[in-house]
Amino acid sequence: MFTTETKIRVRYGETDQMGYLYYGNYAQYYEVGRAEMIRSVGLTYASMEKEYGTLMPVMSLNMRFVRPALYDELMTVKTTLRELPGSTITFYHEIFNEKNKLVNGGSVKLCFVNAETNKSIKAPQFLLGKLRPFFEATTKSETL
Amino acid sequence: MFTTETKIRVRYGETDQMGYLYYGNYAQYYEVGRAEMIRSVGLTYASMEKEYGTLMPVMSLNMRFVRPALYDELMTVKTTLRELPGSTITFYHEIFNEKNKLVNGGSVKLCFVNAETNKSIKAPQFLLGKLRPFFEATTKSETL
Amino acid sequence: MFTTETKIRVRYGETDQMGYLYYGNYAQYYEVGRAEMIRSVGLTYASMEKEYGTLMPVMSLNMRFVRPALYDELMTVKTTLRELPGSTITFYHEIFNEKNKLVNGGSVKLCFVNAETNKSIKAPQFLLGKLRPFFEATTKSETL
Amino acid sequence: MFTTETKIRVRYGETDQMGYLYYGNYAQYYEVGRAEMIRSVGLTYASMEKEYGTLMPVMSLNMRFVRPALYDELMTVKTTLRELPGSTITFYHEIFNEKNKLVNGGSVKLCFVNAETNKSIKAPQFLLGKLRPFFEATTKSETL
Repeated sequence: MFTTETKIRVRYGETDQMGYLYYGNYAQYYEVGRAEMIRSVGLTYASMEKEYGTLMPVMSLNMRFVRPALYDELMTVKTTLRELPGSTITFYHEIFNEKNKLVNGGSVKLCFVNAETNKSIKAPQFLLGKLRPFFEATTKSETL
Repeated sequence: MFTTETKIRVRYGETDQMGYLYYGNYAQYYEVGRAEMIRSVGLTYASMEKEYGTLMPVMSLNMRFVRPALYDELMTVKTTLRELPGSTITFYHEIFNEKNKLVNGGSVKLCFVNAETNKSIKAPQFLLGKLRPFFEATTKSETL
Repeated sequence: MFTTETKIRVRYGETDQMGYLYYGNYAQYYEVGRAEMIRSVGLTYASMEKEYGTLMPVMSLNMRFVRPALYDELMTVKTTLRELPGSTITFYHEIFNEKNKLVNGGSVKLCFVNAETNKSIKAPQFLLGKLRPFFEATTKSETL
Repeated sequence: MFTTETKIRVRYGETDQMGYLYYGNYAQYYEVGRAEMIRSVGLTYASMEKEYGTLMPVMSLNMRFVRPALYDELMTVKTTLRELPGSTITFYHEIFNEKNKLVNGGSVKLCFVNAETNKSIKAPQFLLGKLRPFFEATTKSETL
């Protein structure tokens, strides 16, 4: 298991007339969460596209809304990878408010596409190589 | 069962650099789908909030992405209510492109909140009264 | 002078906690206004990009906000071209609410870029050919 | 004159199919710029609304687009107040990319509205008191 956290402050333009972060805008928070997880291992999603020609289209999205997120609150987006990616990768997200209360939880499943051929591919080695250490470590400690 | 359809053309600002309708923007298409369903029975979600003081916060969202939606395509958002709302209401959505191919499918579950007390309530009578005919009709024809 | 009109209904996700259409979302309404003007002469901006390889990046944007636009209001976006494009094109927009009151007015100046060379070009002939009749007509009637 | 800077990283969902930060999304960057300026003097726009009942609707927006902003670039939003607010307040913004090249420049003029009466008011004292020191300092040094 591999977990990272990133902070996002709710913008005025992201709220709706109920005064809540609009439900459609959480998808961007999830996007930032997974982009920052990838950055934390020394890659960027930008370089995956540009240098490696690997796109990651979204296959499915699931969210439950527990509490409203309000304007100007500094949210914590906790992103977790529960297993190494194979032909797909699933990121789990939990969003907490400043009082550390759960606001939203969910997951996004993406696949890997070769930008040139536009065909689905398996999780590329340059990504697996960066992620494997986090899962080996877990496995080892579990063996003890 | 009650189904309505509405058309939405993909805006340039809704696409991302992959050239696809950004995955987070489908939530707005779902929102338009359910708002137009409510309008079709002679209500508006705007009046539900303003005149009846009934808010409908989103509880959960599920989506699967089948094909990309592209800039300027005229999408058909098909919205279905499978049963009368109780303490929650679930809208099912399917989005088709101009070639009538399924692009995206999913559902949104919302609850009903009294704007003054901020408490959950059951589906209000003014809404049930408008929706019941569609389900009675179905029931009757099924009984035959 | 050449003017077209298109209708856009304000989405819930486009409002902010003041209950107004968020000021940043007007830019999408302007975008729809100019796309529909181009469609009205038998072209599409989508085909300009894909078939003709002509991009139109925005150079400047000016807006004044006269009244709030509210959720679910059906807005009229009036788009005007005051002169034939040269090395740039300027669209003027006025947005009216259901009571025909002016809500917002402004303009967007764009240039033309060859997608392959990434260089600025003059307004392409396939566009000028479609627009010229509207300006010739005006000129003639003014001569009378 | 009073200037503050804040950083914003371009999200995937904010780009368009040209691969640029969509022109309508700069308005959110301006919003973040002015919110962070207000925070830097010990206030928040959130508290101005909630505790002081002061809304700040936008009156006009002007932008010029100099270079594209690209996905994942860490932009610097430089926000400047050239004079103390009176019945309106104008924020000037410049956005720079990672190479410190100017990407976008513009301004937003807002007014002050009493949330209860919905009437325009002058810049409130709690705000002026926080801003005045920055302008007095300038004046004094200019007198020398």
